[in-house]
Amino acid sequence: MSEVIEKGKAAKKASYEMTGISTKEKNTALALIAEQIVADQAIILEENKKDIENGKERGLSTAILDRISLSEERIKAMAEGVIQVTELVDPIGETLETIEKNNGIKILKQRVPLGVVGMIYEARPNVTIDAAALTLKTGNTVILRGSSSARFSNIALISSIHRALEKSSVPVNAVQLIEDTNRETAKELFRLNDYLDVLIPRGGKNLIDTVVREATVPVIQTGAGNCHIFIDESAENDMAQEIILNAKLQRPSVCNAIETILIHSNWFEQHGIELLKELQAHDVEIYGDEAIHNAFPNSKLATEEDWYTEYLGLSVSIKVVDSVETAIQHINKYGTKHSEAIITNDEHHARMFLQNVDAAAVYHNASTRFTDGFEFGYGAEIGISTQKLHARGPMGLHALTSTKYVIKGTGQIRK
Amino acid sequence: MSEVIEKGKAAKKASYEMTGISTKEKNTALALIAEQIVADQAIILEENKKDIENGKERGLSTAILDRISLSEERIKAMAEGVIQVTELVDPIGETLETIEKNNGIKILKQRVPLGVVGMIYEARPNVTIDAAALTLKTGNTVILRGSSSARFSNIALISSIHRALEKSSVPVNAVQLIEDTNRETAKELFRLNDYLDVLIPRGGKNLIDTVVREATVPVIQTGAGNCHIFIDESAENDMAQEIILNAKLQRPSVCNAIETILIHSNWFEQHGIELLKELQAHDVEIYGDEAIHNAFPNSKLATEEDWYTEYLGLSVSIKVVDSVETAIQHINKYGTKHSEAIITNDEHHARMFLQNVDAAAVYHNASTRFTDGFEFGYGAEIGISTQKLHARGPMGLHALTSTKYVIKGTGQIRK
Repeated sequence: MSEVIEKGKAAKKASYEMTGISTKEKNTALALIAEQIVADQAIILEENKKDIENGKERGLSTAILDRISLSEERIKAMAEGVIQVTELVDPIGETLETIEKNNGIKILKQRVPLGVVGMIYEARPNVTIDAAALTLKTGNTVILRGSSSARFSNIALISSIHRALEKSSVPVNAVQLIEDTNRETAKELFRLNDYLDVLIPRGGKNLIDTVVREATVPVIQTGAGNCHIFIDESAENDMAQEIILNAKLQRPSVCNAIETILIHSNWFEQHGIELLKELQAHDVEIYGDEAIHNAFPNSKLATEEDWYTEYLGLSVSIKVVDSVETAIQHINKYGTKHSEAIITNDEHHARMFLQNVDAAAVYHNASTRFTDGFEFGYGAEIGISTQKLHARGPMGLHALTSTKYVIKGTGQIRK
Repeated sequence: MSEVIEKGKAAKKASYEMTGISTKEKNTALALIAEQIVADQAIILEENKKDIENGKERGLSTAILDRISLSEERIKAMAEGVIQVTELVDPIGETLETIEKNNGIKILKQRVPLGVVGMIYEARPNVTIDAAALTLKTGNTVILRGSSSARFSNIALISSIHRALEKSSVPVNAVQLIEDTNRETAKELFRLNDYLDVLIPRGGKNLIDTVVREATVPVIQTGAGNCHIFIDESAENDMAQEIILNAKLQRPSVCNAIETILIHSNWFEQHGIELLKELQAHDVEIYGDEAIHNAFPNSKLATEEDWYTEYLGLSVSIKVVDSVETAIQHINKYGTKHSEAIITNDEHHARMFLQNVDAAAVYHNASTRFTDGFEFGYGAEIGISTQKLHARGPMGLHALTSTKYVIKGTGQIRK
């Protein structure tokens, strides 16, 4: 039996055992995990060093090496994250609806775990701990499939988790790692319909596209954010400049940073050059349409491809448009349905934009950078869903749950 | 451009136009559809006759011919169904959460349409009208792909819908039918990720398995119901007999009818033969395990395959088990996670069963036949979901909606 199928079976079995585990037992297990990874930090850091060395040999970029890198501080932060999860309300068992029928039957709609969650992710070993904590809190079991670049770190972290779970009443197989990082194990996971209730990919566009194309198990799409801000004719200059700089520069590598700016032609005539200069002063490379390129020769001329591009860095596409309608059409065509904003003093235009732009989060006069589970007050985030089924936008604990109808009768039959 | 892509594009465009349509306008359009199909019944029945004749030539079973068959009464019932949908509360626009942050930002989680819904279904032309009504009420647009066996009927029905929509403010392309019923058009629909937000298959196991295996668009699995009832040691004889007969016989061809009975050995010793005789008196063919077969030679010996089988007719598999645990294990192994029941006077066993059986609906002392959107009071049903993401169990209007975060600021940026 392959590693994936073996672990799938064990995860399914453990998920049935989880139905009997109380909130208190789950929180105790989480606290033990937090304790254990700190206690084991010497081994974890040693294994992490192997990944870093391998990564350097393979020529991984500094950015990726930084994502893989662990330190005492980072391990401490991971442990604190786990403790925070113990403080969140346990959603499992909550009754969402009660239906009483004339014949005396009582129907309760209750929140239950999804069952077995698969997570496939790149680089970041902290996802190993995050995902374990959130799935465990929601009574799920999880099969983790990290990337080869963090393999030693992930194996060390999973050993710590298992040492912690052995002291708890949660089954050890509630959290498992696929250690073989060959492409074939990912593909097996994509088609593990017998054991997996959902697969959540976390990573770049390529990973997510591959999963969507190849998976037969249910998938929650996350992440890709080709986000836009539209500066309308009536936008206040100061507000527009401040929001644009925040959304582009506060953390350019994340999914809720903006990649394209759409500017109303009248606003551009008055304030456009000032904004372009400001962006350039912050080392932002500008890919403009013809209007931008003509008015500001220091920019590059954008290609069709550029409007689709999530730069995740110090580049931005900019286009001059003649109306809010054109802006909405552009966003619905090129966007990834993540976070989209309008800056305007015109309430009617704001309403049109908020209603007609098809995205998980739509903003009026605020930075797109707020799309985040912690910012929304969910206390945790398993990712940001850009699809419309099940969960949309920042996913907290509820996204890891399903429901079940529990029907209590006294012998009722259907007439 | 292929028919599927052309209609996909038109559906997406129409779905953006739907954001501006009010509840009143949607209800008016629905009333016009109800009126039109009654007004057009002569043409519809004539086209339906062609399907029936073709079906007879192709040797379709009486059961399938009955599903395809329309009559004045059935058209009237379809029209009444549409009118009932006008009376349901419109879920679109409802605010599900309001989050106000210290910085003054206001985050509203609002219910929105899914966008473009694909429906692929077999035989029953009434699904054409049902699906059109429910998707339209929820502000979605829909692409319907019926089977070749009901092609003429579906084309006639869609013409009536279009004649009705032309008189309304809902775009005509809100409801479209793929007229080419070649297998290739189904496959195109499976992979129409650019235009389709969800695909809902309604039909037999083969159709659903194919969609799950081949689709890259998000899918809601519906339907297949290999449902069980477990008669526990302490079950009252009268109640058990009555519930079993109801769940097996009241309508054997539907998904919430039972296919397997599990019987505690002690109960079987006392009342088993009486139950088997009763079933046989109702022409039910019995596939029993060895214990059943030995005690009741009038039964057939069940094969491993039989425990997986959804007979949808006058057959049933029966097994004697020694505990509630064994019953739960059997159901979790062979069931399709639809509807499962325990008959018992032991509250502890009931709790174990309700908690540990992994299914959309779990029953204590009642017939599984209640799993139904109308019985649950949802006023409508787009199908019964047997998966855990997005919707589980009977799906009413809410299952055809998603959510969107609408964020209103006054210039806030992330610190």
